[in-house]
Amino acid sequence: MIRLAIDMMGGDLGSKATLEGVRIFQNKHPGKVEFLLVGKKEELAEIKDCRIVDAREVVPADAGVLDALRLKESSMFKAVELVKLGEADGVISCGGTGAFLSDATVTIRNIPGVKRAALVAPFPTAMKDKKVVILDVGASNENSGEEIAQFATMGSLYSRYIYGIEEPRVFVLANGTEEDKGSPEGKIAYKILSEDKRINFGGNIEAREVLSGQADVVVTDGYSGNIFLKGSEGVAKFMGEMIKRSFKRNIFSKIGYLFSKKGFKEMSQTMGYESVGGALLLGVNGVVVKAHGSSDGEAVSSAIEVAYTLAKNNIVEKIKEGLANE
Amino acid sequence: MIRLAIDMMGGDLGSKATLEGVRIFQNKHPGKVEFLLVGKKEELAEIKDCRIVDAREVVPADAGVLDALRLKESSMFKAVELVKLGEADGVISCGGTGAFLSDATVTIRNIPGVKRAALVAPFPTAMKDKKVVILDVGASNENSGEEIAQFATMGSLYSRYIYGIEEPRVFVLANGTEEDKGSPEGKIAYKILSEDKRINFGGNIEAREVLSGQADVVVTDGYSGNIFLKGSEGVAKFMGEMIKRSFKRNIFSKIGYLFSKKGFKEMSQTMGYESVGGALLLGVNGVVVKAHGSSDGEAVSSAIEVAYTLAKNNIVEKIKEGLANE
Repeated sequence: MIRLAIDMMGGDLGSKATLEGVRIFQNKHPGKVEFLLVGKKEELAEIKDCRIVDAREVVPADAGVLDALRLKESSMFKAVELVKLGEADGVISCGGTGAFLSDATVTIRNIPGVKRAALVAPFPTAMKDKKVVILDVGASNENSGEEIAQFATMGSLYSRYIYGIEEPRVFVLANGTEEDKGSPEGKIAYKILSEDKRINFGGNIEAREVLSGQADVVVTDGYSGNIFLKGSEGVAKFMGEMIKRSFKRNIFSKIGYLFSKKGFKEMSQTMGYESVGGALLLGVNGVVVKAHGSSDGEAVSSAIEVAYTLAKNNIVEKIKEGLANE
Repeated sequence: MIRLAIDMMGGDLGSKATLEGVRIFQNKHPGKVEFLLVGKKEELAEIKDCRIVDAREVVPADAGVLDALRLKESSMFKAVELVKLGEADGVISCGGTGAFLSDATVTIRNIPGVKRAALVAPFPTAMKDKKVVILDVGASNENSGEEIAQFATMGSLYSRYIYGIEEPRVFVLANGTEEDKGSPEGKIAYKILSEDKRINFGGNIEAREVLSGQADVVVTDGYSGNIFLKGSEGVAKFMGEMIKRSFKRNIFSKIGYLFSKKGFKEMSQTMGYESVGGALLLGVNGVVVKAHGSSDGEAVSSAIEVAYTLAKNNIVEKIKEGLANE
């Protein structure tokens, strides 16, 4: 059975929303996961079917990385530690990104051969049911060309074993499709990838085309990837508000909404991180999934789903083997 | 009278769409602009009310920058040259971005004191009628911290004289709001701006918040700015397609569209570059506006509107004066 450690105290909505996520997942996949719930035991006292791990501290959402790493009794730290100790296959937290990623990287450590772990965000695309995997979207602030090139290997393995794409098509994010475009590091990655026979390399891709469906994997430095991720979220949120405004305009548009709401609900599911289920840290010796700080039960359940799929498909072993052939 | 040079051959839709743009503008603002239309004179023979400047060559949309700069007889080159010669106050082209910006920078040259010209894109925000000015969105591939800091001065002058914002609030694009976030160059810009009394500096801003309306000006290096611009376009296009799909779903959703289409048409006007009217190059000795390659008449007319507003408000002189006080 897959064993997953959950940081119960990291989310903005508290342990109740996180627990709701666990319950939603259990209803969907009964008996598939053994949960290790890490938090204040008095808050979790009524839970009988999961292992409870007591933790007395909470990492504040705005805690600096160094401060967070000092909180050894925090629910986040203890949840991550369970992976290091081999008691859990993976860990999920809604806590601060910087703190969680640093903690996971320092505590669990990279898979041998991994130059740098990368935060991966799967995005929806214009092609139905097709997702594109983008990495790094913010585990690092700077990356070397060699690191970006290695993200292609990890992203390809992810696309193959999680989405079943046999030969995932990989692109480098750049400010133009020509070979001489891109950041200095991106250009180095381009050169390495164009000579790597094991990668199905498509060249540079502009940010405008990332969601078009032509790419299975897009690699970039963590800083640009973060701008892309957050910028996309901002535009999606902005347009979502404009859609609401368009429907609330007058009595006619409100009637219009009644007629068409089903399609728009599907759309918001496709766009929302609830369906994408959080970002994951690829390249460390365990499954690490970061859910949004504001995650409700549905979002937490999706994040658990991601962790479950990664653990079930043994992504850590797959990366270990994939890099051994480098 | 304001004099504007138009590259008639740069757009994907040919001189007909560009001419349509001129006509739309003339109908809105009769007698306000003297047009210098640069293109093959046989294609423009029937136009009697504008000055026609013959140009025998067209810069191919995918031309490399160096190749483009060699085409001295091209409509783009000749249109830009009219600004250098003082015969036009500004120039508009739908041609290739790289070629046009390089041509404009090399030929027209920077305003004295300007370290680097910046491509500026105004974006809509969640606040009604409020726009945010983002620069650089791709004139350069790399920028120093000092250059990014100077973009704040140019962007503030733009916001003040074009949008009438007395004390524009300026932010640095970063991967977190804390002072220690951001690219190495962004951090240098942060330090310079936090000590500059003439700038209403708000600190770092995450890409997610750029369109929220809190910022009047967002400064960034050209590479990240380009990722933000193109990424936003991609998401907007993707969501636009999903809106269409939602309405086309079945007979009910089609009825829904009939009831609510007015609001959605307004939305697509707010989002579309037709309303934003192209990006502009700030910091050179003349008004330079780049319209989308696929611009139709409406989009060309909006780009002319931007150039007209910049020339009328004498933005070049305003920047010259603003930088003289540095």
